[in-house]
Amino acid sequence: MTKKSALQKARASYQPKLPSALWGAVKAVEGAPTESVANQTEIKSLFPTTYGLPVLTFEKNTVSKVSAPINVGVILSGGQAPGGHNVISGLFDGIKAINKDSRLYGFLMGPGGFVDHKYIELTAKIIDDYRNTGGFDIIGSGRTKLEKVEQFDKGLEILKELNIKALVIIGGDDSNTNAAILAEYYKANNAGVQVIGCPKTIDGDLKNEMIETSFGFDTATKVYSEVIGNIQRDCNSAKKYWHFIKLMGRSASHIALECALQTQPNYCIISEEVEQKNMTLADIVNDIANVIAKRAANGNNFGTVLIPEGLIEFIPAMKKLIAELNDMLAANTQFASLDRAAQREFVLNNLSADNAAIFASLPEGVARQLTLDRDPHGNVQVSLIETEKLLSEMIGKRLAEMKAAGEYVGKFSPLHHFFGYEGRCADPSNFDADYCYALGYNAAQLINCGATGYMSSVRNLSKPSVQWIAGGIPITMMMNMERRNGEMKPVIQKALVRLDGKPFLKFAENREKWAIDTCYTYPGPIQYFGPAEVCDQTSRTLYYEHNSK
Amino acid sequence: MTKKSALQKARASYQPKLPSALWGAVKAVEGAPTESVANQTEIKSLFPTTYGLPVLTFEKNTVSKVSAPINVGVILSGGQAPGGHNVISGLFDGIKAINKDSRLYGFLMGPGGFVDHKYIELTAKIIDDYRNTGGFDIIGSGRTKLEKVEQFDKGLEILKELNIKALVIIGGDDSNTNAAILAEYYKANNAGVQVIGCPKTIDGDLKNEMIETSFGFDTATKVYSEVIGNIQRDCNSAKKYWHFIKLMGRSASHIALECALQTQPNYCIISEEVEQKNMTLADIVNDIANVIAKRAANGNNFGTVLIPEGLIEFIPAMKKLIAELNDMLAANTQFASLDRAAQREFVLNNLSADNAAIFASLPEGVARQLTLDRDPHGNVQVSLIETEKLLSEMIGKRLAEMKAAGEYVGKFSPLHHFFGYEGRCADPSNFDADYCYALGYNAAQLINCGATGYMSSVRNLSKPSVQWIAGGIPITMMMNMERRNGEMKPVIQKALVRLDGKPFLKFAENREKWAIDTCYTYPGPIQYFGPAEVCDQTSRTLYYEHNSK
Repeated sequence: MTKKSALQKARASYQPKLPSALWGAVKAVEGAPTESVANQTEIKSLFPTTYGLPVLTFEKNTVSKVSAPINVGVILSGGQAPGGHNVISGLFDGIKAINKDSRLYGFLMGPGGFVDHKYIELTAKIIDDYRNTGGFDIIGSGRTKLEKVEQFDKGLEILKELNIKALVIIGGDDSNTNAAILAEYYKANNAGVQVIGCPKTIDGDLKNEMIETSFGFDTATKVYSEVIGNIQRDCNSAKKYWHFIKLMGRSASHIALECALQTQPNYCIISEEVEQKNMTLADIVNDIANVIAKRAANGNNFGTVLIPEGLIEFIPAMKKLIAELNDMLAANTQFASLDRAAQREFVLNNLSADNAAIFASLPEGVARQLTLDRDPHGNVQVSLIETEKLLSEMIGKRLAEMKAAGEYVGKFSPLHHFFGYEGRCADPSNFDADYCYALGYNAAQLINCGATGYMSSVRNLSKPSVQWIAGGIPITMMMNMERRNGEMKPVIQKALVRLDGKPFLKFAENREKWAIDTCYTYPGPIQYFGPAEVCDQTSRTLYYEHNSK
Repeated sequence: MTKKSALQKARASYQPKLPSALWGAVKAVEGAPTESVANQTEIKSLFPTTYGLPVLTFEKNTVSKVSAPINVGVILSGGQAPGGHNVISGLFDGIKAINKDSRLYGFLMGPGGFVDHKYIELTAKIIDDYRNTGGFDIIGSGRTKLEKVEQFDKGLEILKELNIKALVIIGGDDSNTNAAILAEYYKANNAGVQVIGCPKTIDGDLKNEMIETSFGFDTATKVYSEVIGNIQRDCNSAKKYWHFIKLMGRSASHIALECALQTQPNYCIISEEVEQKNMTLADIVNDIANVIAKRAANGNNFGTVLIPEGLIEFIPAMKKLIAELNDMLAANTQFASLDRAAQREFVLNNLSADNAAIFASLPEGVARQLTLDRDPHGNVQVSLIETEKLLSEMIGKRLAEMKAAGEYVGKFSPLHHFFGYEGRCADPSNFDADYCYALGYNAAQLINCGATGYMSSVRNLSKPSVQWIAGGIPITMMMNMERRNGEMKPVIQKALVRLDGKPFLKFAENREKWAIDTCYTYPGPIQYFGPAEVCDQTSRTLYYEHNSK
């Protein structure tokens, strides 16, 4: 058993603040029927019984009716995010408020535990041990994808055995997509089990008009901003290093953008902009090298660069190169038997001219990495590429050229960092503690009013929590058809950074100044007990998206 | 200009707590004459005017005399440590309390600014902007060594020009050694300038009976423990990775030990133990591999390993190998012109048999690293060796052997982290904020009573700050003679981890349990506003060293 820290003990008694609509008995107010964001005909045909459902909004009810006890199952799906334990404790308190004899079962280590019938009952004692803590360790998480009918049927056996009437799936876009498919399947087959999703991911790419943010993003970006701020203070004290800081978030650059807004670094790459402007790796390298040269001209041979983990896949030229490499290597099984030099030779001779030129321009180690380590689907594992080192190496070469041409006078000493695991299981900020608890408590209300195929939704989040709006959003409403592994599938649209969105515009408006001047901000660690302006600040992304200023 | 964060604004008004002896007028009580820790004859002859001085202890004075204004200079020397700004603000408030017309000058970018006459006056406005903040950015720091008579004379010019009567040097063991030499030089030459040192280093290796801890250690280890705790929570949620976490601290393992006591990882290497037990790299690898195998046998294919940055230099066999490589490569200038394979061949053929065997056993990349990148003195730059990757690679191989022999059944997926720059400039914990402010304020009192060649000393630190004992310790008292770059020099004895000390014994007593069970503790981020048991906890090292429990 783990030993509780002083902070954990003190924080255990924090009572998350619920939206006022959820303070007592509620009634669900139905909106108009909904449509999916695109491909309405296809989505409707794939979700015949759960398509077009109305948005639900909870309001206070003057009459409170007695409800029967309800057994609920819960699954944590995919990567960790701060606040998962509060979703579960909110759900627990919610179903106990409905009827004290309700029971909550947790499936172990993700969807796999559901399929394999591995579970525990989550009692008050267990729940109390995990309130307001980070991590998913209460029941563990896993990456098994819940997408096959056999899995649904196998899972149903244990639901029946435990008399579970509703399943809450806490996950990202893919897991919520699968929650919608499962909801449809159980409803179409009269299984008698409702399915509710909860929006989780530190990446921040599960959001839309009705889901203002996924949980965990707030806390994780605050932890990253804490350490980035500390590094910047070090950088500004020693004045001799350039820090290249890679940040988790493969598909979207929300994390990098949020951290940039919090810490005001000298440079931050936004993958979505790289893609939109069709930038090459050389363009990015030149752009950063120019900033370094300008700072050096002012005597400042130090700085910070934030790099989104997924960058490589957003550079159109790299994407093409990787695609050609994937096909080439899949078709040439003798490749693995060649020696190192022969492999490089082979690749250079067999790539198209454009791609061969890009391949040749990469540092040899990185180029080699692109030809190794295929995943089971034959794809390059881009997450293994140390983009932060790739960039600093190429920038070092570019600066040497500039120095030879008299365009740069200075010293360039790079240091590298990657932050991801440091923030996914942090103790939730007040925002995430409240938001997650509300999402879980709200999920219990959705269950109680019979909803299925809905995502728990708490919005108006830039306002104090009492003013938050609670309800449910039909998951099909967020879906469109996308090609995945060669097949068209119904999926929740991933929210990438919008280049016309206020967070990006705020960044774009300031970045030239941040590049040349030293405008670092040092947010410091998350505070749980101090003044509200310190403890209750939302993410800058949420703030700019929902405030006119 | 940097933009203040909400926390910085709220934290600016924190009033550090002083020891009660420093609340008003003080009198210095002299102890008996002191002796150096060793080599008394040599040290005495090198410090004729500053050897044997008494320990000074400040007590409340019933009479308060009016003192003349005094101009003081301050230097930040070496690596950053949380709290440096509070030493300076304490010093500022201290000399202003002595006489409001006193002035404080800060030399820029370390000792170099002193020699080159680069400085600013630190006014109340500047000081107020930096109270309770991390970083050394108020005047910057640098690594120039202040050790030559010409530097002392050059510095004296600016001291005379600014009418500075005392210089405060904030630094680690080397910087304080140099402060003692400077104090002796100025005193012996009747320069009329006192020199006072302040014990700074996150490494925690500047301590002794009278200096209970260096400042910054408390905060830095709390930041590292925060992120280690977060990683452990992630590790215990996903249950699929082994995290290899390298921690700054080249000469001693205090940081790793403190973080282990705070977070209870599955394994923590203590360099001093490796050296004392004459362990080889293979011994360490086998030991960790055995822990991994035991955990795997219980179904736990995850864990955490803490690694002190300086490990390699503490492994006796590696030390010998590196020494022979240094000599061999210095004597063979044609080595650089050989190609990669020929270089390896050359090294293997020319090393002694024992060392050749060790060289051959290393992963090729690391072996190669040992033959590259000499520093200007011809030494291997061990800090460039990615020990965390070296270990995980060797452990992976060892586990494969064990698997083949039927001694291990499991999956081994390693991840790597290095924490250093993340903690050196964090906002100081309450402990460091108070301790540093007291060290600075106390330095002003030492100056006022005419002391030179003293280190500012605040002790009894495991008690509440009002009970702290303030005074001065003759720096010569901490010195002995050691060989440095081939010459015997007077230096402050470095405090390594004592294997018979309570912090290590506490660790040793628990580590077998921590290895096999999962006993992680999650300290969470430093709190500045909450309950005392959360905000005012000292480091575990300090606690165990000064409490019988």
